[in-house]
Amino acid sequence: MTHIDDFNRYESQVRGYCRRFDALFVRAVGSELFDARGRRWIDFLAGCGSLNYGHNDPDMAEALVSHIRGNGLSAAMDLHTDAKHRFIDAFVGQVLKPRNLPYKLQFTGPTGTNAVEAALKLARKVTGRHNVLAFTNGYHGVSLGALAATGNRFNRMNAPLSGVTRLPYEGYMGADVDTACLLERMLADPSSGVDSPAAILFELVQGEGGLGTASPAWLARVATAARRHGALLIVDDVQAGCGRTGGFFSFDGMDLLPDIVVLSKSISGFGLPMAMLLLRPEIDQWSPAEHNGTFRGNTHAFVTAEVAVRKFWSTPAQEQATRARAARVGAALQALAAKVPGACVKGRGLMQGLDLRDGTLADRVSRNAYSRGLVIETAGPHDEVVKLLPPLTTPDPVLEEGLHLLELSLREALGELSLQSA
Amino acid sequence: MTHIDDFNRYESQVRGYCRRFDALFVRAVGSELFDARGRRWIDFLAGCGSLNYGHNDPDMAEALVSHIRGNGLSAAMDLHTDAKHRFIDAFVGQVLKPRNLPYKLQFTGPTGTNAVEAALKLARKVTGRHNVLAFTNGYHGVSLGALAATGNRFNRMNAPLSGVTRLPYEGYMGADVDTACLLERMLADPSSGVDSPAAILFELVQGEGGLGTASPAWLARVATAARRHGALLIVDDVQAGCGRTGGFFSFDGMDLLPDIVVLSKSISGFGLPMAMLLLRPEIDQWSPAEHNGTFRGNTHAFVTAEVAVRKFWSTPAQEQATRARAARVGAALQALAAKVPGACVKGRGLMQGLDLRDGTLADRVSRNAYSRGLVIETAGPHDEVVKLLPPLTTPDPVLEEGLHLLELSLREALGELSLQSA
Amino acid sequence: MTHIDDFNRYESQVRGYCRRFDALFVRAVGSELFDARGRRWIDFLAGCGSLNYGHNDPDMAEALVSHIRGNGLSAAMDLHTDAKHRFIDAFVGQVLKPRNLPYKLQFTGPTGTNAVEAALKLARKVTGRHNVLAFTNGYHGVSLGALAATGNRFNRMNAPLSGVTRLPYEGYMGADVDTACLLERMLADPSSGVDSPAAILFELVQGEGGLGTASPAWLARVATAARRHGALLIVDDVQAGCGRTGGFFSFDGMDLLPDIVVLSKSISGFGLPMAMLLLRPEIDQWSPAEHNGTFRGNTHAFVTAEVAVRKFWSTPAQEQATRARAARVGAALQALAAKVPGACVKGRGLMQGLDLRDGTLADRVSRNAYSRGLVIETAGPHDEVVKLLPPLTTPDPVLEEGLHLLELSLREALGELSLQSA
Amino acid sequence: MTHIDDFNRYESQVRGYCRRFDALFVRAVGSELFDARGRRWIDFLAGCGSLNYGHNDPDMAEALVSHIRGNGLSAAMDLHTDAKHRFIDAFVGQVLKPRNLPYKLQFTGPTGTNAVEAALKLARKVTGRHNVLAFTNGYHGVSLGALAATGNRFNRMNAPLSGVTRLPYEGYMGADVDTACLLERMLADPSSGVDSPAAILFELVQGEGGLGTASPAWLARVATAARRHGALLIVDDVQAGCGRTGGFFSFDGMDLLPDIVVLSKSISGFGLPMAMLLLRPEIDQWSPAEHNGTFRGNTHAFVTAEVAVRKFWSTPAQEQATRARAARVGAALQALAAKVPGACVKGRGLMQGLDLRDGTLADRVSRNAYSRGLVIETAGPHDEVVKLLPPLTTPDPVLEEGLHLLELSLREALGELSLQSA
Repeated sequence: MTHIDDFNRYESQVRGYCRRFDALFVRAVGSELFDARGRRWIDFLAGCGSLNYGHNDPDMAEALVSHIRGNGLSAAMDLHTDAKHRFIDAFVGQVLKPRNLPYKLQFTGPTGTNAVEAALKLARKVTGRHNVLAFTNGYHGVSLGALAATGNRFNRMNAPLSGVTRLPYEGYMGADVDTACLLERMLADPSSGVDSPAAILFELVQGEGGLGTASPAWLARVATAARRHGALLIVDDVQAGCGRTGGFFSFDGMDLLPDIVVLSKSISGFGLPMAMLLLRPEIDQWSPAEHNGTFRGNTHAFVTAEVAVRKFWSTPAQEQATRARAARVGAALQALAAKVPGACVKGRGLMQGLDLRDGTLADRVSRNAYSRGLVIETAGPHDEVVKLLPPLTTPDPVLEEGLHLLELSLREALGELSLQSA
Repeated sequence: MTHIDDFNRYESQVRGYCRRFDALFVRAVGSELFDARGRRWIDFLAGCGSLNYGHNDPDMAEALVSHIRGNGLSAAMDLHTDAKHRFIDAFVGQVLKPRNLPYKLQFTGPTGTNAVEAALKLARKVTGRHNVLAFTNGYHGVSLGALAATGNRFNRMNAPLSGVTRLPYEGYMGADVDTACLLERMLADPSSGVDSPAAILFELVQGEGGLGTASPAWLARVATAARRHGALLIVDDVQAGCGRTGGFFSFDGMDLLPDIVVLSKSISGFGLPMAMLLLRPEIDQWSPAEHNGTFRGNTHAFVTAEVAVRKFWSTPAQEQATRARAARVGAALQALAAKVPGACVKGRGLMQGLDLRDGTLADRVSRNAYSRGLVIETAGPHDEVVKLLPPLTTPDPVLEEGLHLLELSLREALGELSLQSA
Repeated sequence: MTHIDDFNRYESQVRGYCRRFDALFVRAVGSELFDARGRRWIDFLAGCGSLNYGHNDPDMAEALVSHIRGNGLSAAMDLHTDAKHRFIDAFVGQVLKPRNLPYKLQFTGPTGTNAVEAALKLARKVTGRHNVLAFTNGYHGVSLGALAATGNRFNRMNAPLSGVTRLPYEGYMGADVDTACLLERMLADPSSGVDSPAAILFELVQGEGGLGTASPAWLARVATAARRHGALLIVDDVQAGCGRTGGFFSFDGMDLLPDIVVLSKSISGFGLPMAMLLLRPEIDQWSPAEHNGTFRGNTHAFVTAEVAVRKFWSTPAQEQATRARAARVGAALQALAAKVPGACVKGRGLMQGLDLRDGTLADRVSRNAYSRGLVIETAGPHDEVVKLLPPLTTPDPVLEEGLHLLELSLREALGELSLQSA
Repeated sequence: MTHIDDFNRYESQVRGYCRRFDALFVRAVGSELFDARGRRWIDFLAGCGSLNYGHNDPDMAEALVSHIRGNGLSAAMDLHTDAKHRFIDAFVGQVLKPRNLPYKLQFTGPTGTNAVEAALKLARKVTGRHNVLAFTNGYHGVSLGALAATGNRFNRMNAPLSGVTRLPYEGYMGADVDTACLLERMLADPSSGVDSPAAILFELVQGEGGLGTASPAWLARVATAARRHGALLIVDDVQAGCGRTGGFFSFDGMDLLPDIVVLSKSISGFGLPMAMLLLRPEIDQWSPAEHNGTFRGNTHAFVTAEVAVRKFWSTPAQEQATRARAARVGAALQALAAKVPGACVKGRGLMQGLDLRDGTLADRVSRNAYSRGLVIETAGPHDEVVKLLPPLTTPDPVLEEGLHLLELSLREALGELSLQSA
């Protein structure tokens, strides 16, 4: 009996990724995964963006082992610990100060959806309003409050959702239609049917929704509308943050000051559960203990997160490397897109993908890739986008190898190659 | 400038525990916490029940370090990993099989509230119903779906909650009034205004709500009513499970088969974020990937969780030790209760507390305790219950020392002792 | 082809009463209905309480015809009309002033449910709160806001309801259990899970819910709790008001000052659609036109309503007559109750019924009555209560005849009589 | 003391129209209103569209008086009455059959909002879905379910609304942007965040929202999208129906078959409260009595409604007259629009208005008109549209007089005339 039989027997039907990528993984280093028999895959999934610095970074591993060996705390809720203290110091010093960002930090239950819940609750408290604007193809998590803002109908089913008004994201009605104009109009019009919102919540790159991106110009208009109508601006940087698009934040260099930024996924640097809100100080109107969560003090995560910040964000080296790799990925994808009529490249930074306009084709590409030694997923409303989330630290030869495997997988899917040939 | 200034400056006002227990904690072993200067506290809070086996159990630490050193995966989502495989094997073999429990396992986002969200969503899907019954003083988390079921008005504020009918828990109307009867009547009465529920959700010991407990007789009636009216029975064992009341589950030995059991807090054994649903196989009607969450595969937690299960649940030793300690705690609390008119002992197992009927007095006890070297919190609607959550593994001398400090703290609060004297 | 075929073919399946009482009614006078062939029925249904003064009161008919002949306005929205002016004068002078009631009048869309909607909206505005307390077996209408407060599960189905907490009405848990105590406790307990309410909404006699009644003592406690916790007290007097229980209001003589009283059904006196809120002046915090409704100025109804007030409420005669008839009905029902084990008499004033504890039996009684010339309906969770709503003006001989027919119908249903014999 | 003082003292602050049109109206005939002193106003408000055939049509008055004199029933709930029978016969014969419309009739509580509530509830039952699509500037009533679909933020305040997705109506983003395309895309896209709807609800002319109109082409696409995605099509013809735009229905001649049509306002013909749903027979899936409402059988309204149908809809005369008058009104408004930069004419049939792009100016026009003897209201998000709703039967000289008064009022508002001069 294989491991797959055991998981089938004992684990819920809800399992997803393991149905396609069905190996028994036992080891992972950098951008590579290994199964029990030593078979290797290049990892362009990277824990769905929670492993931006790759698997088992040795410096973080060392710090974590040292913390454990030294009997450092693990679950500390919101108690003061030296590990949290050092993380805050590093984050404020290396990330916030150089960007002149005035934020306070709130550690929430250590998942993106928990942090989105906290952000929405705080926005509703601060404004005394109920409604939240969110966008087509947005993804913010699956607990009830966040799910109301998430676009995916499949995830939304069977849930009593309310409190969110849905508006078209940039480009949703085609390049010619200015969707920011609709947002402005609906907010300004007292009989639009859109109640004055507590917040406008969005991603700058729609990670699950198919890699749509918002331009600085569109964002500036949304931000202006938010300010004019008394709504908070909440950037969900759970997937697009932590360096994924190049800068630490997806809005770096955009002259945008969100009221709240939601971070999770790669904030610990090591794949450990952690989530954090950045709050403009005026917004930090919580009463003590008004929002909580047992694991909001995952100290192991603070330990690795500090290393991540100091190692990757005290110099521009990683950002430059990411941008270089992103350029390489973009070029490679453009070349692939040229092979498929109607296909195009979407996304930004190391969060780009190939929109094949065909979920079946994209599925075949992903499956072929897995057979060839590359773990890569699909995204978008019809899973029509082959989405690349390689670790930001992927060495160039590994990146090239992965891109080559992707090309082979696409050509195979298009019938240009016989099965599994190279 | 102290660490407290730094946290004040950079961390959100939402902080709670650290306002009372304001040391900078750096080290923790077993049932003891140490600050930067080496000062020691006995820990009767235990990560709010997430550290049932104490801090830094050496066997778990060893396994975790070995996993890290061996480049084991950290964030694996729902991929197959050897660590998850071994945990499932241990949990099924050591916990489920001996109890003849037929459950399948669902790993959710690694917090209790995420798991409650998943449970409610599944119950709504399976039954096609919307309403959920929950009880006075219940606590199930603060994300929107779980928060609707949570009783705490302070946490509930500013949130658009719906979908829950509130009923009085056992004993809520005094010992003479049978609240199960009200539940039965409301379900049977087609014009009660209580819509047929998808689920009845409850704790067997109300951890945050003040340590109310449900009797086997009351539970049997609730379970019968659930079955008769087509509702699922969901036990939230986040705080009361994992051995806290003696047996692994709070309902061990009660002839109760919940449709869904929610576990989190101490399931990893080491304080690492992890949450899990146990589902009766007929209930496991998820479609693949219908519910998700990036950190649902916290592999570090699987590693320590396996050790916890094998070490503490393959023989009856820990359960026996817990029961013995619980008896000792109960006796000590009874003695203390005798000092305060109207006070009584509440709770069950190593989840007992002293209901002082006076939040101010309880607050003073907790503060005195902290000054004397004991971390202990309060719970209940008015924070009137001094609540003991020592690690189940607390050595007897440490337990005695803690109980002695508690006695001194109470006496001081009652004015029987001069400040800080012993 | 009969009229029934036509209605079947062209009118929606939603029809209810006409399935049991299937004549083609063409004429009605006082307490009597006549079909196209001249067959007569005594009317103990009285438009479900909208015809408290019987059908076609000649004085009201005269005033209405005169209004029409004189080209008086019909639909006037909230414009000033002489008819409204005169009604207000009569109502204030004859109903409010003698009772020292300080209310302002709001005319809403002319149905009970519209008025309940307005009351709840105003309560939410005034208090800034969301939650409303309503009771088991309460009935407040079927538009969404009112329906959330209505208990009937059949009516509630398929509607996205929220915003109401359900509590047991007086007597719901049996005579021994004090349900006001539960209400008090849930409001006082900050972790009860019952959010601080905008309003407590209830009927003093539960017209559709089976004629449960609230005692002055219970009401006083509910009123005190409302005041203490900042909730408005809303009495739904749609069915129990306008003299139905003897006094004009169901709370006459009870030392109860509701913040809002909801009136409809018999307020026009003639069966014409009309609804009205009575608001304590401090509560009248509407902005102009904040709530509206095209037919809020049904001027025909104002015309007859003025006559009704002046004719029946300027002297105590009608109230005395009602009380005398109520006593007679009560005695007759007690005698009938004695025939059926477990049966009892419920309700108050001319809003009493025979609780047969058996919906099938009650159904048979109602059907038998119809065959014998008496229109009488059933109410209650299982339609187990034969409910008498005769016009308050029913002449004694007609009342006696109706009661006699009811007795025969019951005896027939019990098998004491052969079918249709007398 | 004037009547105004009395109303101020005793009637709620919620009053709206009477603040501007503050006379004490006592008599009305055709298109004219008279106050207590005999002063006359031309009525271009017509009970907000509930008096399409003018005030006190003599044939309806005669039939109603005869009904009352003959002791016909008034409140009959859903009992069979000869009056309802005759109305159904007339309506089916004169309105439905000539248009090949297969509808069944449901009589709801006698207001538009009650009927909308019933329509939404039925749509949710039939489809098993929750979400409803409604449009910017739509108006559907103020009870909670209908209010969720209504656009007006002022009316929406303080209400716990949910279950509606808001989309831009035709033309909302300017003439160049195809809003039907957004609707199609959002329905087709499984991650749009718009849940599959139970219904799409809209007006063909937005009566309160400012007289926006939907074109046959846009409607056809919305209808196709509804059918493709399993949503019911609900036309709210409360204000635009009953001949207001020329044909009986606002969609006459458009090859559109709504699943449900909502009628109220002028359906009784005489200003009496009445509301009705037209249901495609397959949609009529109500269980008996599943939806109710005391005044759903307003028999007086059935009496006048029958006369209205037979008098005005058995020949094309009224429709032709309406179209002629509409052409005249359109031409007159075009001439007025030419006087105001940016102004334009909106609406259709005898439901047209002058969009002045300036609420202050429109307000002045309305006030001037009232001073001059014309009752006319404003509509639109900023009350910037002077809206004409004259009775369809307004004699040409009266119509011309009203248009002349309107012109004077506008010129006065523009400063072209000295105050009140002619």
